[in-house]
Amino acid sequence: MERAFQRTQVLTNHLLQSSTPLPSQTLSSNACLSYSPPELSENYAFDVKEMRKLIDSHNLEERDWLFGLMKQSELFNPKVKGGKVFVSPDYNQSMEQQREMTLKRIKYLQERGVFKGWLTEKGEEIEMRKFSGFEIFSIYDHSLFTKLGVHFPMGGAIQFCGTKHHHDKWLRDTENYSIKGCFAMTELGHGSNIRSLETVTTYDSNTGEFVINTPCESAQKFWIGGAAKHATHTVVFSQLHINGINQGVHAFIVQIRDVDGNICPNIRIADCGHKIGLNGVDNGRIWLDNVRVPRENLLNSVADVSPDGKYLSSIKNPDQRFAAFMAPMTVGRVNIAIGAVYQSKVALAITIRYALTRRAFSLKPNEPEVLLLDYPSHQRRLFPLVAKTYAMSFAANYLKVLHAKGTPQSNKGIHIVSSSFKATFTWNNMQILQECREACGGQGLRTENRVGHLKGEYDVQSTFEGDNFLLMQLVSKALFAEYMAAQKRNKVFKGLGLEHMNKPCPVIPSQLTSTTLRCSQFQMDALCLRERDLLNRFVADVLKCKAKGENTEQAFNTCYELAKDLGRAFSERAIFQKFVEAESTLPAGSLKNVLGTLRSLYASICIEDVSFLRYGYLSVDNGANVRREITKLCNELRPHALALISSFGIPDAFLSPIAFNWIDTNSWSLV
Amino acid sequence: MERAFQRTQVLTNHLLQSSTPLPSQTLSSNACLSYSPPELSENYAFDVKEMRKLIDSHNLEERDWLFGLMKQSELFNPKVKGGKVFVSPDYNQSMEQQREMTLKRIKYLQERGVFKGWLTEKGEEIEMRKFSGFEIFSIYDHSLFTKLGVHFPMGGAIQFCGTKHHHDKWLRDTENYSIKGCFAMTELGHGSNIRSLETVTTYDSNTGEFVINTPCESAQKFWIGGAAKHATHTVVFSQLHINGINQGVHAFIVQIRDVDGNICPNIRIADCGHKIGLNGVDNGRIWLDNVRVPRENLLNSVADVSPDGKYLSSIKNPDQRFAAFMAPMTVGRVNIAIGAVYQSKVALAITIRYALTRRAFSLKPNEPEVLLLDYPSHQRRLFPLVAKTYAMSFAANYLKVLHAKGTPQSNKGIHIVSSSFKATFTWNNMQILQECREACGGQGLRTENRVGHLKGEYDVQSTFEGDNFLLMQLVSKALFAEYMAAQKRNKVFKGLGLEHMNKPCPVIPSQLTSTTLRCSQFQMDALCLRERDLLNRFVADVLKCKAKGENTEQAFNTCYELAKDLGRAFSERAIFQKFVEAESTLPAGSLKNVLGTLRSLYASICIEDVSFLRYGYLSVDNGANVRREITKLCNELRPHALALISSFGIPDAFLSPIAFNWIDTNSWSLV
Repeated sequence: MERAFQRTQVLTNHLLQSSTPLPSQTLSSNACLSYSPPELSENYAFDVKEMRKLIDSHNLEERDWLFGLMKQSELFNPKVKGGKVFVSPDYNQSMEQQREMTLKRIKYLQERGVFKGWLTEKGEEIEMRKFSGFEIFSIYDHSLFTKLGVHFPMGGAIQFCGTKHHHDKWLRDTENYSIKGCFAMTELGHGSNIRSLETVTTYDSNTGEFVINTPCESAQKFWIGGAAKHATHTVVFSQLHINGINQGVHAFIVQIRDVDGNICPNIRIADCGHKIGLNGVDNGRIWLDNVRVPRENLLNSVADVSPDGKYLSSIKNPDQRFAAFMAPMTVGRVNIAIGAVYQSKVALAITIRYALTRRAFSLKPNEPEVLLLDYPSHQRRLFPLVAKTYAMSFAANYLKVLHAKGTPQSNKGIHIVSSSFKATFTWNNMQILQECREACGGQGLRTENRVGHLKGEYDVQSTFEGDNFLLMQLVSKALFAEYMAAQKRNKVFKGLGLEHMNKPCPVIPSQLTSTTLRCSQFQMDALCLRERDLLNRFVADVLKCKAKGENTEQAFNTCYELAKDLGRAFSERAIFQKFVEAESTLPAGSLKNVLGTLRSLYASICIEDVSFLRYGYLSVDNGANVRREITKLCNELRPHALALISSFGIPDAFLSPIAFNWIDTNSWSLV
Repeated sequence: MERAFQRTQVLTNHLLQSSTPLPSQTLSSNACLSYSPPELSENYAFDVKEMRKLIDSHNLEERDWLFGLMKQSELFNPKVKGGKVFVSPDYNQSMEQQREMTLKRIKYLQERGVFKGWLTEKGEEIEMRKFSGFEIFSIYDHSLFTKLGVHFPMGGAIQFCGTKHHHDKWLRDTENYSIKGCFAMTELGHGSNIRSLETVTTYDSNTGEFVINTPCESAQKFWIGGAAKHATHTVVFSQLHINGINQGVHAFIVQIRDVDGNICPNIRIADCGHKIGLNGVDNGRIWLDNVRVPRENLLNSVADVSPDGKYLSSIKNPDQRFAAFMAPMTVGRVNIAIGAVYQSKVALAITIRYALTRRAFSLKPNEPEVLLLDYPSHQRRLFPLVAKTYAMSFAANYLKVLHAKGTPQSNKGIHIVSSSFKATFTWNNMQILQECREACGGQGLRTENRVGHLKGEYDVQSTFEGDNFLLMQLVSKALFAEYMAAQKRNKVFKGLGLEHMNKPCPVIPSQLTSTTLRCSQFQMDALCLRERDLLNRFVADVLKCKAKGENTEQAFNTCYELAKDLGRAFSERAIFQKFVEAESTLPAGSLKNVLGTLRSLYASICIEDVSFLRYGYLSVDNGANVRREITKLCNELRPHALALISSFGIPDAFLSPIAFNWIDTNSWSLV
């Protein structure tokens, strides 16, 4: 009632302000600066709904349903500010309180049927539904996203690494959250180098049990999301020693808490403590003291141990076996990559709306101050990020489908593309969040305005589920392997988009005009040229190192700079390709036109990268032409700013107060 | 007692582990991975104490005293981890609790005499003492730093903008914290554009009072650190209307709370709410409802109003008058700049110590895993940041002295240099914190490990006390003015380090050898060449825009890209100059040698910047030579890693658990 009264007051002020002078105690919010909604000044030159369809691509109605479910529940902490409802967790709560809220939110969503079929149904449709769910969770809160993002992948590991009896026994309870899952892979001493985990499992044929043990402090399971407070079960990754032979890392289902939440015998659990974000997730540490589990708890799709203790595996090569165990991990990377895109959307939507209503400095005395977004420098800060976000959206849609349709044959490709996109998208996201936070000035620092707060929440992205740095090295190593394989067998390149390597090397025109710079064929040529040349250089340098006596690993380490540049070249070319493909599905018209401008901007900022000058693909003059074109493209996008971010389809309640009437929101009447 | 017992257990384990096998429940921390202190493997090739003296430069004993004061008080939240004490705020506390703790810490420091003379003494010595104090506060916690960093600058404003009767009346009480100050400049609608503040003050000659008013919601004072809960007084910046003429922004002392903490009549205060960091500072909003203050409360060193209401000022030009009122603000920028350097030191000390003890992946089967810092790529990530931090240290020392010795004549120079260094240092700091956080992997996300947490705490730096983006534009505009002035009067350049513009343009050799690249004369030439050329280009482009009909402001906006590159060129050249000067004070020897290597690395990363290729100062081949040299320099610094960060002089207690025995710290016995 008090809120309603306040709101009425604000409205009354609004109505009064142009006619009656108000007593000085009742301030008009419009006496000096006034807020004008961007909708009043900006036009939509294309159909925003159509654009949203294109970039969201699937499960639109379900997304809107999920948005609605969250908005209508008190658990999602709705707050009225300036007459609008905003939902966002209360981050002033302690870590302990935030964790309990996350759990309650999950239970609420479960009760509403959000997760129905997520583990018990199969196929592309349910996979795409899950992805869209994770996208929406990520828009609300990273803790919600992540707590579900360790629970369902535990289910996923059971699906992929387990066999029918595992599915029958565990999946339904996991789907309905009566089993709460976590994922015990990382240890204190080993995060990236999973093959060297120190947890050891042996088999006791007398009892038909596996005995899982944490032999030393560095082997304690660490960062296990869900373990500190709530999880009842986990999948433990451990070395499997059979008859004195280490068969490498295998996965076992282990119960860690009973139904009442008591920690099971021979399990010790501790908290990872307060973090710089993600405090709604109860990351924990686990010690296993010769824990005994039935033989059936080994996830045995690729390897098994017979009752009498014989090790059996359809895959003899330990490298391939390890890869098979790791394959289901990919979904985590895909989820992180697509979540990153939506964070960027939230931040850009807020920042651009603010820049369309906030003014600073006049160009001439007594003139009104200039809108932030009318400064060429502000356009240059933000529009390339909008273009990047559109590009990432199209690439994310491709990645989701690639994964949802996945076959054992496509695993390698998915692994490389998801690694590349996860690293690139999350780095882009951090760059976008930082730029948006600074572009919002001080307002970007208020937790309620989200933009700045998201940085701490999402920072983890660049190192979890594969350190970005290592993922990009992995991409370059994979490209090296492709190159060597093609050369060895004298075959053409096939897959990973490397087919362009089979064609003659493209040539960059000596004088780049505006028309050329906006031509998608030129843009693709330029990106392919860089990738091809860097791959050639990388292979040559690695081979040179090997010729000097270094082994392959050492050679890769020595050539880390080329590896880095090559990884980036691959990612940007692959992303660009998806942009072009999305554009090509459209009929001529306003939507296609604006997408063409965005595509040119995305390509231009890739081509503006220092590597094009560093390796001599662009002359100094052409480099200057590219920069000039970027300024022009930003200027051309200015009229579309509001439409471009409205197309992201994020409901107002999931944005923040500065995206709307920030003068009203901060008025005394609302204190 | 429990802690002492735990510690004894850890020690016992240590002593036992090499001899007796332990029962499986009592895990040895060394059974698998072992922690080896970097001190055991690394040598000091130079005198670390001498290096600290050089980079800390002044008040070393007082700093150590201050470190000690903090370490010995429970208020600074000491925690024993792995047998070592660490002091750091409890960031899991609510905003409200953090604010109370910050206040208690300040009172404790005040009672110990830390602030003695800070406002009542004058001269270089006390200024340098204050700076060293702020450096130590920043090492502990940004909220402590900032709450004092708004209190003492309020005192500073009274010192600089006030006259004797203000000093006599206010400074002693402010120094001993019986007056708690805040700084009411920014408004909801105006942060950067201070000249357009909307708060209005008039004079009532009947009562001899000023009447200060918030005329509308956008004029509410916003972000006022200290205002929400604790401050008793503030300096309000407001337009001064005398006889219907706006004389521009002036500063007034206003009491906002009485001694019991009650808000004064006609003052309304609200909270800015939860922030992404700095929650130990109570940022607030203030509305002034025709608040009356005595005529004497105008800080009148440059302008006054006579009892009968006549406006009097020794400075007729409103621009110059505004500049005079803003001059004392500079100290805030200086403090922020120097604080940023110490944050970088904390992060690098922690990250490099961790990288000297954490291993990942073996190069060959059955070989031990490789130390992170032995990877060339890890060296390439961290050593350029160490070089930057040394460079910033020397530049910060120069800036402090420049300010402490400040004269009215040097104000303009201080303004430009402090703007340039504040923006550059804080951006560098954010880059360093981000890189360090990622280089620590997941451990960088634990609040107790500081590196990641500092990002949220210090993010504000890039936009408060002058938005970095605008500060860098200001630098370029100032350089433009210098250029025009020199040309107009046909005079030489003097000041701001621009004297090199009077000499012939340096020439870059066509083939850069390692010897040339390490020569400080070449390095200086390269940086001067860039600055000179960009200044020439910027002036030419701005004049071209003006010739087309744009006014100066418009022309600056159009040429924002050159302005940005020029601002960076100025800053990096100015910083480099201070590095060379610091090095030149040393006799030949190991200290000078390692500093030479660091200086070459700093210069090389500046020269590696895309601008050198973009504007054609470097050929593609020479660019490649620079990059190769950087790899070599990083490799040469590897043996000095521990010594370089130990020289930062930060006590262990102000680093974090991962900087030491992180296996012990995480052992079960300490849970």
